[in-house]
Amino acid sequence: MAGNSFGKIFSLMTFGESHGEALGGIIDGCPAGITLDFDAIRNEMQRRKPGQSSIVTQRKEEDEVQFLSGIFEGQTTGTPIGFIIPNTNQKSHDYSDIKDTYRPSHADYVYDKKYGIRDYRGGGRSSARETASRVVAGAIAKQVIPNIKIHAYVSSVGKITIDKPYSELDFSKIESNVVRCPDMDMALKMEDYIKEIKKQGDTVGGVITCVVQNVPIGLGEPVFDKLHAELGKAMLSINAVKGFEFGSGFEGAKMKGSEHNDLFNEDGTTKTNLSGGIQGGISNGMDIYFKVAFKPVATLIQKQDVLTKEGKIINLQGKGRHDPCVVPRAVPIVEAMTALVMVDHYLLQSKSERFLGLF
Amino acid sequence: MAGNSFGKIFSLMTFGESHGEALGGIIDGCPAGITLDFDAIRNEMQRRKPGQSSIVTQRKEEDEVQFLSGIFEGQTTGTPIGFIIPNTNQKSHDYSDIKDTYRPSHADYVYDKKYGIRDYRGGGRSSARETASRVVAGAIAKQVIPNIKIHAYVSSVGKITIDKPYSELDFSKIESNVVRCPDMDMALKMEDYIKEIKKQGDTVGGVITCVVQNVPIGLGEPVFDKLHAELGKAMLSINAVKGFEFGSGFEGAKMKGSEHNDLFNEDGTTKTNLSGGIQGGISNGMDIYFKVAFKPVATLIQKQDVLTKEGKIINLQGKGRHDPCVVPRAVPIVEAMTALVMVDHYLLQSKSERFLGLF
Amino acid sequence: MAGNSFGKIFSLMTFGESHGEALGGIIDGCPAGITLDFDAIRNEMQRRKPGQSSIVTQRKEEDEVQFLSGIFEGQTTGTPIGFIIPNTNQKSHDYSDIKDTYRPSHADYVYDKKYGIRDYRGGGRSSARETASRVVAGAIAKQVIPNIKIHAYVSSVGKITIDKPYSELDFSKIESNVVRCPDMDMALKMEDYIKEIKKQGDTVGGVITCVVQNVPIGLGEPVFDKLHAELGKAMLSINAVKGFEFGSGFEGAKMKGSEHNDLFNEDGTTKTNLSGGIQGGISNGMDIYFKVAFKPVATLIQKQDVLTKEGKIINLQGKGRHDPCVVPRAVPIVEAMTALVMVDHYLLQSKSERFLGLF
Amino acid sequence: MAGNSFGKIFSLMTFGESHGEALGGIIDGCPAGITLDFDAIRNEMQRRKPGQSSIVTQRKEEDEVQFLSGIFEGQTTGTPIGFIIPNTNQKSHDYSDIKDTYRPSHADYVYDKKYGIRDYRGGGRSSARETASRVVAGAIAKQVIPNIKIHAYVSSVGKITIDKPYSELDFSKIESNVVRCPDMDMALKMEDYIKEIKKQGDTVGGVITCVVQNVPIGLGEPVFDKLHAELGKAMLSINAVKGFEFGSGFEGAKMKGSEHNDLFNEDGTTKTNLSGGIQGGISNGMDIYFKVAFKPVATLIQKQDVLTKEGKIINLQGKGRHDPCVVPRAVPIVEAMTALVMVDHYLLQSKSERFLGLF
Repeated sequence: MAGNSFGKIFSLMTFGESHGEALGGIIDGCPAGITLDFDAIRNEMQRRKPGQSSIVTQRKEEDEVQFLSGIFEGQTTGTPIGFIIPNTNQKSHDYSDIKDTYRPSHADYVYDKKYGIRDYRGGGRSSARETASRVVAGAIAKQVIPNIKIHAYVSSVGKITIDKPYSELDFSKIESNVVRCPDMDMALKMEDYIKEIKKQGDTVGGVITCVVQNVPIGLGEPVFDKLHAELGKAMLSINAVKGFEFGSGFEGAKMKGSEHNDLFNEDGTTKTNLSGGIQGGISNGMDIYFKVAFKPVATLIQKQDVLTKEGKIINLQGKGRHDPCVVPRAVPIVEAMTALVMVDHYLLQSKSERFLGLF
Repeated sequence: MAGNSFGKIFSLMTFGESHGEALGGIIDGCPAGITLDFDAIRNEMQRRKPGQSSIVTQRKEEDEVQFLSGIFEGQTTGTPIGFIIPNTNQKSHDYSDIKDTYRPSHADYVYDKKYGIRDYRGGGRSSARETASRVVAGAIAKQVIPNIKIHAYVSSVGKITIDKPYSELDFSKIESNVVRCPDMDMALKMEDYIKEIKKQGDTVGGVITCVVQNVPIGLGEPVFDKLHAELGKAMLSINAVKGFEFGSGFEGAKMKGSEHNDLFNEDGTTKTNLSGGIQGGISNGMDIYFKVAFKPVATLIQKQDVLTKEGKIINLQGKGRHDPCVVPRAVPIVEAMTALVMVDHYLLQSKSERFLGLF
Repeated sequence: MAGNSFGKIFSLMTFGESHGEALGGIIDGCPAGITLDFDAIRNEMQRRKPGQSSIVTQRKEEDEVQFLSGIFEGQTTGTPIGFIIPNTNQKSHDYSDIKDTYRPSHADYVYDKKYGIRDYRGGGRSSARETASRVVAGAIAKQVIPNIKIHAYVSSVGKITIDKPYSELDFSKIESNVVRCPDMDMALKMEDYIKEIKKQGDTVGGVITCVVQNVPIGLGEPVFDKLHAELGKAMLSINAVKGFEFGSGFEGAKMKGSEHNDLFNEDGTTKTNLSGGIQGGISNGMDIYFKVAFKPVATLIQKQDVLTKEGKIINLQGKGRHDPCVVPRAVPIVEAMTALVMVDHYLLQSKSERFLGLF
Repeated sequence: MAGNSFGKIFSLMTFGESHGEALGGIIDGCPAGITLDFDAIRNEMQRRKPGQSSIVTQRKEEDEVQFLSGIFEGQTTGTPIGFIIPNTNQKSHDYSDIKDTYRPSHADYVYDKKYGIRDYRGGGRSSARETASRVVAGAIAKQVIPNIKIHAYVSSVGKITIDKPYSELDFSKIESNVVRCPDMDMALKMEDYIKEIKKQGDTVGGVITCVVQNVPIGLGEPVFDKLHAELGKAMLSINAVKGFEFGSGFEGAKMKGSEHNDLFNEDGTTKTNLSGGIQGGISNGMDIYFKVAFKPVATLIQKQDVLTKEGKIINLQGKGRHDPCVVPRAVPIVEAMTALVMVDHYLLQSKSERFLGLF
């Protein structure tokens, strides 16, 4: 109810503030008998981790996950998987500047109004540090549905945009550069631009494209829990996201039906895929693809007007080590949330929706 | 679980196929003691109803709602409100053409693959007729939170787009034209264009903008159930929707933080509102605004290739009375879903989230 | 949230007051492809119906269910099954006596305090008439899991109790008498006693025993949603229920471990079954059996002190046609709620909890 | 879905096996602004802890809870409260005897059948050690609703039973003896009996009575989530529980309506309270009281027949340090689960169910 859990059958509940003792979560509903690949989990954590390259925040956080339950001799047991990620970097900061002020376009002000109290250290619960727990769960989710392939990449940084469709890109190049852009020429331009933005003490937004391949036909629920509605909510729940579109998206709104309809091949596949792999909320076996828009990070290393608790505007110098552009580190988060949606609908679909001569 | 309900505290579950006996739903969790304005409910139904103007489908459907419970002497009692909308138009059609074929970009094919059976008459459960139940519930939701003002309007039809921000528009003009566009010049252009499209037997997409005003500060849950994530899911659950953006949206992804941050006034309001009234997933008291992209309706009055159950492609003449452009009739649906999200978060926020000296 | 729905995967939401337009409900999550036996549904409704014998209430209610959706050509389609049961008997009563008074041990008083308003006609939402919707859903649930056999019967009326264990009874005799007691000698005694109680204008309580056979091993969730906890909640949600025990029950609390432990046979069955077919919350394949205690109906055909809205005690003559003993008609309700629990856990268990080489 | 969470608004999800790294949980939905009394939490943990007296298990477990989030400067912040209880006692046991055998009336067998794998060390997830997390959450729940008073006590051990109603007992005596029985004479008899049972290497069951006082009128939802149905489920979810009854309970089933009805006083209280403080599923302001039956612990320090994985029966000597009677340590667990139900319904009831001129 209070919005800290996600998923119906494969369900994740997270806890933790950026500068408390630890973050963590519980995965409830993971099927039993899966031999976990812990290196794969660690690898996903590395991709999200601060300090991984020169274009992301230089904060030092180890982001090491400790599993506390639900795994026995390397296998999932079907019982809840509890885990924590200790905050090793949370000590001895001076928060006097942030304690009694509200930074623009941050959640400081609304938390105080909503709850009457907030843990102001490093953004508290509103910090994107919370997404570390999502990456843990997403990495496990991927292992439950290994045949479904999820590829996210940076398709825009500010106004710099890949103009090729995903089908012309080589996903194996995504991790070859710090931006996580599979078009190498654009990747270099994006990297240069982010460095320039960083020098200015400014930040910039961007777009991530995600492609999900080899999806079985029939995932998604037809009315309120359409597969794309679930994906949309998952993406919009990620910090800094301002928009979501799938298939033809906003461009599709400009088209005519005679241009937009995806004609069938005899095997049930379609000649075009403006539907984006989902029809009537249900996967049709074609690639699912969607775009996620991220606003620029609100924390600037510049002077900025802030509001005090007493209702005064004062000019404050921003400080700290923040991401000049959030999208390179958001790629594994987009993938993780996608995996959580896919595994949940995969498990939901299984036997429960079609009568197959139950025992 | 099977995705036919929406909302946590103020919850709607719907049922019904387009050509079954009746559609309907149950609203569970409506507070007791609200004197309902039944004319207001009827009015919302009229706005969604087919046949209301020359640019929408000419199907005849009465869409009269019958309330069966939860209301006593005109007031809500706190018990579930059951209602039905009889299908008066469902008789005696010939479905032989549609029974064994799958139309492109419809849900026919995926329903058959998911369930192994489908009610093929008029689209069955995948028909947008289901949204009639949402409009009933939304009309009641609006009456629970009368101070929150919800205004949706058509901002694009195909490539014809209002280029003014919502603040320069007069919402009282929305219902003055059949398109539901408050810019009268653009409304005329859109109307002409829709008529032309209709003549071609074609369809066209469009965009609806929605503005929510007078929202209390503090609605929305900070992590997975961010207010905009809930709104996004609500919109993406509407038939034919391909995209959702709020505040600066996809444009915001191109901006720099120094341009994008909304500086505070001393009273906690902000000078700009690129945030779109929501920060960190929680309403900040500024206007909430968002855009919803609708693809063109897939049913054409043209010849089209369809797939048969046996795996053959045949060319079929589309027929029937369908909307050449869905957005005029989708305006009340967008408002209804918005109202459902707002009332749910309003009730959730109440006492439960802040300790106020409980009894 | 407001407590009008039951079940997670196979979910029932009900609506309706005893004297409103209609009762009804929505079943969401019923698997597709089940050919429904409508006679079997009707038969369950007949077993619950008033007026079926001389020892139950003589009210006339047709209790005819109308299915509105989710069924196509006799088969379930996987979409929600909406249904209504019109209240044909609700007209033209005089409620002036009940309108402003609170009857003892009824819900009149608490409804008014909780909601500030109540539909006082015939008990409104608190009437056991609501259980008609449960019987509809239970009858469908039984058809999803035909191999699981559910037998409920009356084991006590007042102090008259069958002292035989269920294994010595012939379940085929349950429907052979109006009490629904498979021990024919006791059935006659119970019937005579109920008639005597009725003559006095009084009522009497009783106990129903339920036996569930042929249950697959592994149903039930180990911590909060133990199979017996779900059954217990299901039973306690039925009007007038005061207690639930399974297996050895309250007697088991008096025993020693060395007497109580169920020793294994080599095939995994157990020599005794004090566990009641459930260990650690999970079915073990042995018979599940439990008892449900019903208090005497609170409505008497006698003079009784009641409280007025103004806070006065007045003496009022009870009237109407009420059950002198509720248990004969409660037998199909106990079975229906049992079926809802079993089908939900059956579907939940399926693929989702054990990794079986997912596609 | 997988049954590891409890509560709708004030929600607890737990994780952990008895011999894994740690147990723990997340409390989601605790209101903000509550200054926590950590000594009170610790005190509840002490009451549940093994080794607290000579009549309970002599296992050494520190049961120290570490809070990781959701609390700032001693106050709840409205964000999820994550906590862990490290297992300090879990090392270096020899489990070779239990690994491949199924003990009678334990969950070993059904876990293996359900999941295909189990953490056999010390009972794993099926161990009552899981209830430590419930006690943490219950101790916090009590602090959210300080005016509601919850008193549980041991009313039976084996056949030794207090025959006085709770109103003749002095609750302040509950903690004065190791049995947690407020009748001092009976407490001594119970203690002696437990010691005798322990000497035999046997175990014995018992009954806990719980009384909830000062409950506001109006808690509980009228149909499926009746307050007593929720309490019943909560109790039945505790390890070893076989039965639940409230108010008149199973005795009530023997009574006549004219004896059972609780006549009103003019202030809305009732002269008798056979209803047990709940009418129609809703609290009426009178004391809520109920009984919970616990079977004898299945682990004996005797030779017993067990089933091997290979389907052989072998005779095995039970060992370890187990409770000869579980009820003394179960008293705080019963209270904790009661508190979780009460706080959840308290928060649910608040503004959301009655229209009070919402802003």
